[in-house]
Amino acid sequence: MTNSVTGRQARTHLLAFDPRRISLVVGGMLIGLAAFMLPPMATDFAAGSDGWRIFAISALITGFFGTMLVLISRWGETAPISRREGFLLTAASWLAMSVFAAIPFLFLKSGMSFGDALFETVSGLTTTGSTVMTGLDTLPPGMLLWRSITQWIGGIGIIVMAIIMLPFLRVGGMQLFQTESSDRSDKIVPRAGQLVRYIALVYGGLTVICLVAYKIAGMSLFDAVNHAMTTIATGGFSTHDASFGFFPQPAVHWVAIVFMVLGSLPVVLFIRALRGGSWAFWRNVQVRGFLTIIAVFSIALGTWHAVTDKLSLGTSYDQVVFNVVSIISTTGYALGDYTAWGTPAIGAFFVLTFLGGCTGSTAGGIKVFRLQIMWLTARAYVGSLISPRRVSTTLYDGRLVEDDVPAAILAFVSVLFAMLVVLTMALTAFGLDFVTSLSGAATALANVGPGLGPIIGPAGNFGSLPEGAKILLALAMLLGRLEYFTILVLLDPYFWRK
Amino acid sequence: MTNSVTGRQARTHLLAFDPRRISLVVGGMLIGLAAFMLPPMATDFAAGSDGWRIFAISALITGFFGTMLVLISRWGETAPISRREGFLLTAASWLAMSVFAAIPFLFLKSGMSFGDALFETVSGLTTTGSTVMTGLDTLPPGMLLWRSITQWIGGIGIIVMAIIMLPFLRVGGMQLFQTESSDRSDKIVPRAGQLVRYIALVYGGLTVICLVAYKIAGMSLFDAVNHAMTTIATGGFSTHDASFGFFPQPAVHWVAIVFMVLGSLPVVLFIRALRGGSWAFWRNVQVRGFLTIIAVFSIALGTWHAVTDKLSLGTSYDQVVFNVVSIISTTGYALGDYTAWGTPAIGAFFVLTFLGGCTGSTAGGIKVFRLQIMWLTARAYVGSLISPRRVSTTLYDGRLVEDDVPAAILAFVSVLFAMLVVLTMALTAFGLDFVTSLSGAATALANVGPGLGPIIGPAGNFGSLPEGAKILLALAMLLGRLEYFTILVLLDPYFWRK
Repeated sequence: MTNSVTGRQARTHLLAFDPRRISLVVGGMLIGLAAFMLPPMATDFAAGSDGWRIFAISALITGFFGTMLVLISRWGETAPISRREGFLLTAASWLAMSVFAAIPFLFLKSGMSFGDALFETVSGLTTTGSTVMTGLDTLPPGMLLWRSITQWIGGIGIIVMAIIMLPFLRVGGMQLFQTESSDRSDKIVPRAGQLVRYIALVYGGLTVICLVAYKIAGMSLFDAVNHAMTTIATGGFSTHDASFGFFPQPAVHWVAIVFMVLGSLPVVLFIRALRGGSWAFWRNVQVRGFLTIIAVFSIALGTWHAVTDKLSLGTSYDQVVFNVVSIISTTGYALGDYTAWGTPAIGAFFVLTFLGGCTGSTAGGIKVFRLQIMWLTARAYVGSLISPRRVSTTLYDGRLVEDDVPAAILAFVSVLFAMLVVLTMALTAFGLDFVTSLSGAATALANVGPGLGPIIGPAGNFGSLPEGAKILLALAMLLGRLEYFTILVLLDPYFWRK
Repeated sequence: MTNSVTGRQARTHLLAFDPRRISLVVGGMLIGLAAFMLPPMATDFAAGSDGWRIFAISALITGFFGTMLVLISRWGETAPISRREGFLLTAASWLAMSVFAAIPFLFLKSGMSFGDALFETVSGLTTTGSTVMTGLDTLPPGMLLWRSITQWIGGIGIIVMAIIMLPFLRVGGMQLFQTESSDRSDKIVPRAGQLVRYIALVYGGLTVICLVAYKIAGMSLFDAVNHAMTTIATGGFSTHDASFGFFPQPAVHWVAIVFMVLGSLPVVLFIRALRGGSWAFWRNVQVRGFLTIIAVFSIALGTWHAVTDKLSLGTSYDQVVFNVVSIISTTGYALGDYTAWGTPAIGAFFVLTFLGGCTGSTAGGIKVFRLQIMWLTARAYVGSLISPRRVSTTLYDGRLVEDDVPAAILAFVSVLFAMLVVLTMALTAFGLDFVTSLSGAATALANVGPGLGPIIGPAGNFGSLPEGAKILLALAMLLGRLEYFTILVLLDPYFWRK
């Protein structure tokens, strides 16, 4: 094979694709990222904090590299992207965003190691919400706003990826959610732009409504802005070390509960409703499953917590529903320390860490549709054991579950547990105890936020972990966010061959 | 539907099958069980212990019920069994054996609750090896022998079930191991008898060789007999509270290691070799995977244990290889307390709890072939992501992995983790701590033996658990042993309809 690149007209390359076509999109995203550094700059400038310089420099660096990438790209070309380009584009944009969004943290006056900055940034962009920072209440407002912004833009990135890119790439059984627009590569581009506009409308609209609701419920305007962004993104960063423990008002908690749930629903449902469809979301099988899981855990734990800790049902349900929704939606806000409620609560929250919200939202974890397919597969399997000759078809939400879906979900679950094993072992090798290692690995891979145990539990913080453990956890968050396979395909030598 | 049973000639029943055809086999097994109560009776009689009366009475009761079941059966009929009868027969025989094998424990002078007796019996028959009994060293020899016998006969029951029944019933992806004899229901009977004889020959032969090896390595004859039975069954019951900690001789440990490994290999390989086939077991993909896992964990943990605890490599490997093999083979003998070696060891042994040995042996757990199919499915899936149009076939050990196998394994894994979640939650509700609950659920479902933590860890004992927790764990052992679906199909109303 010879390198026959002779100029713009060359159609043959050493690689199966031309990386310059990807640099256009990545460059554009970096320019957008630079633009998002301006509100924190303005906030710090208005507050009289010299933190604004950090954001000015960061925006310049990010904008410069973004412009360079756009300039070297083949921006005159408009051919649709191929599958391999899709994988590379997805991985490259998340990596580039993670590196450049970390710049403001590196300039922070209080000093932050590379591992800390990477952890905090990736935790933001992947909307995980674990933090290594303490003293949030005394941080310059610009930096707090920047943390919230990383989650907010990470959130919209996830939705675009989940609705447009992953079904097109058929990752992790997501082909179930292929729309016509993502069926074939030559069709993705025309309608993608329109879809992105609708996603932005829903996402922005929900954020504004959430902001207003928080303000009415009693938050300050600054807190309402930040928490609205990290609630809709099911992110979990707060402006206070005590997270939602800072707000005594139950009204604030219930606003959070409602919008964490809304943030975990498939965005396509909102889009269809806006375009004249039905607002009866509960007719959707996945939504119904999600709300059922929340109800079962809330009622069981809420009643149990009221009885064992002699609380009124109101107080108990306030705390229990908040934390159940916070964990299953993979937001990760804390309201009190549920690990002090006794072992059944610890067990329940450990399970909730894995479940996750609906697909096509910012929620992480295994996700409800996969759990439902697993259940349907097990059911169908029991039927086939009784009558092996009976041909049965499995329907999910009225659509046929094709043969390749169980294999895709088995692959997903296998990789999830393999990663969990490897990561848990690696964390124990850093000297961390078993519960911290296991729950830390789980919370990172599922993009939830808090783990279990005194160190990284809901009352704790990831700051005291060894540098190497933080870097590993940051990589795990990225892997989990990209549903593993978007990264794993890049490790297959076959991917890079023609 | 009307009940039209009019006598022996009736072919139509309210149920899809005639339960009296099952009673012949179950009755025969109970008569066999009664016969196995005679050696402990003789042992206690010879030792001058009046424990012999316990076994005499138990044998009478068991033999009586067995005879009754045979008498009411349609023993003149020789028609092959159907699939539904196969499921019912499997479940019924394990339940009947569990109930009747518990009788001697109930008569024990030191007193044993129903939960304790059920736990100990099921732990024996399922070759799990968890125990609620202490003071083993002072127990009458008959009772010790009875515990070992429950594991030994449980072991042969498992092999017969795994080689003949489960592939025929297509449970948990086991159709991969269908032999010609189990392909169709009208073929299972003629060759089954011959297969059972070969299984008994291999199983009995290995037990005798193991017994001799233990005796030469330094065990007393009584210890050698008992440990040979519980080693080949990968069971794990010992005649001493300290388990293998009682034997300081490394030679004894290495005999155990070799025979625990042999006990975890597919019995069909021995049968084929005896019939003139190859003794080169490592050519088998599953065996190679199993030995590789043992080697990786042993070398990593052995070196790490030697370095951190400043031991000689010999001492470290003696302890590490023994415990790695004991857990992955789901035997569960203890040699020292590996949970004191630090958290990486705890993490490693928790992972090993799930893995298990090869299928077609007495080992439990997920089993190596399922792990390998999961790996192949994930690999094939990565390939299909890169080139969706390329049709690829997955081969396992030279055989085509058909489309229904990944679905079957997804169903198996889904049920395993669902059970793990439900059981862990239930155990926390009994007031047990998180690590005890999680590892107790895992060790029971995988039929391993020891859990983690100070209560049920390798240095602990299940005796102090609440009665309800013991009954739950006993049911979990049975479910795990029968690969879940053999029981779950019975819960489907469709199973009981014509």
